[in-house]
Amino acid sequence: MERQELEKLTRDYQLVQEQLQNLAMQKEQFTIQKEEHKLALVELEKATGKVYVSIGGVIVETPKSDAVTKVKERQESIDMRLNIINKQYDDFVKKEKSMREDITNALKSEKA
Amino acid sequence: MERQELEKLTRDYQLVQEQLQNLAMQKEQFTIQKEEHKLALVELEKATGKVYVSIGGVIVETPKSDAVTKVKERQESIDMRLNIINKQYDDFVKKEKSMREDITNALKSEKA
Amino acid sequence: MERQELEKLTRDYQLVQEQLQNLAMQKEQFTIQKEEHKLALVELEKATGKVYVSIGGVIVETPKSDAVTKVKERQESIDMRLNIINKQYDDFVKKEKSMREDITNALKSEKA
Amino acid sequence: MERQELEKLTRDYQLVQEQLQNLAMQKEQFTIQKEEHKLALVELEKATGKVYVSIGGVIVETPKSDAVTKVKERQESIDMRLNIINKQYDDFVKKEKSMREDITNALKSEKA
Repeated sequence: MERQELEKLTRDYQLVQEQLQNLAMQKEQFTIQKEEHKLALVELEKATGKVYVSIGGVIVETPKSDAVTKVKERQESIDMRLNIINKQYDDFVKKEKSMREDITNALKSEKA
Repeated sequence: MERQELEKLTRDYQLVQEQLQNLAMQKEQFTIQKEEHKLALVELEKATGKVYVSIGGVIVETPKSDAVTKVKERQESIDMRLNIINKQYDDFVKKEKSMREDITNALKSEKA
Repeated sequence: MERQELEKLTRDYQLVQEQLQNLAMQKEQFTIQKEEHKLALVELEKATGKVYVSIGGVIVETPKSDAVTKVKERQESIDMRLNIINKQYDDFVKKEKSMREDITNALKSEKA
Repeated sequence: MERQELEKLTRDYQLVQEQLQNLAMQKEQFTIQKEEHKLALVELEKATGKVYVSIGGVIVETPKSDAVTKVKERQESIDMRLNIINKQYDDFVKKEKSMREDITNALKSEKA
């Protein structure tokens, strides 16, 4: 590998690492949301009083069964996004590993 | 292009890529907010019970028509911000592309 | 300036730019919160029905006057944080400018 | 240290600095959450009217004692996460310091 190619690879590698960190943060945020929606269903099951749905800055009184449906719909949408992010994350982990090996090998052969 | 100019360009390029990532995250956040406000209007339309507005840590009972007005005002403000961010994002995409070409050309001519 | 010092300065400069971006994001978040608390007071003034305070995942019915006091206390705390961030931001803007000049001058004298 | 090793160390050092910044942001977010849950308990103690729990987009009327239990459970979970992040943060501070010294020493011996 030429010196310039190696420098380019190194820069690209840094960017991949940053994207990995961003994806890791998104993964965590959606995982927290997933957990919260699971707990929301638990709360709804126990609910004997009034139930409300909160969205976009408004809160609206809702029949309990409608609230359950809504939470389940959101759960599906969160699962879908989380699956996409998990897939992207795994791809970037592989990419990161492969680039790291390329850089290590290039440095070794430069040295030799 | 001189070696030093190329190095400077490369560093600037990295920064542009980071700003692109930041803008992409902001785009996503505002897009989610936009979607939530659309769903809030749907909820309000169906609402037959009490309606509340939630802002800055307080929740206030509100006539349904006032809540609708409020959500629509917020929608406009979100749309405005999203338009600004989309414009910035597109500008940075162009900038990123143009810098990438400059770097590629500079590396080629160095090699030659 | 020696080549190595220049490289160090350049890396430090990149970090300062990243910190600037982080501070800019924090500025924006607190500015949005400030705006929301202003709007919360407007809502409270108009409120004729029930008023609630929302914090840490619980919502509690509250006398209107208590809610107003609470929002004003939070406003003060937000203003304080925003002032600190604005000060840090301005310091980093100066730092960034001064480092940029040092780098430009070092590159010029290297060239000469 | 060889030039290439130094370059690698410098890149790794930048990444560690970025991770430090990310951890610092997470620390702050969980510290804010911790503070909010403390304030939530204060609000609950004073509460004479209705009490609700808000989670995953739904709001459910809850006996006051259940709400207190819930907030305390969340506090424990926040404390646990905050402890993990604090530990990671301290580890990265040490790592950052040690890498900075290695780089400074390597640059000095190159110069000599």
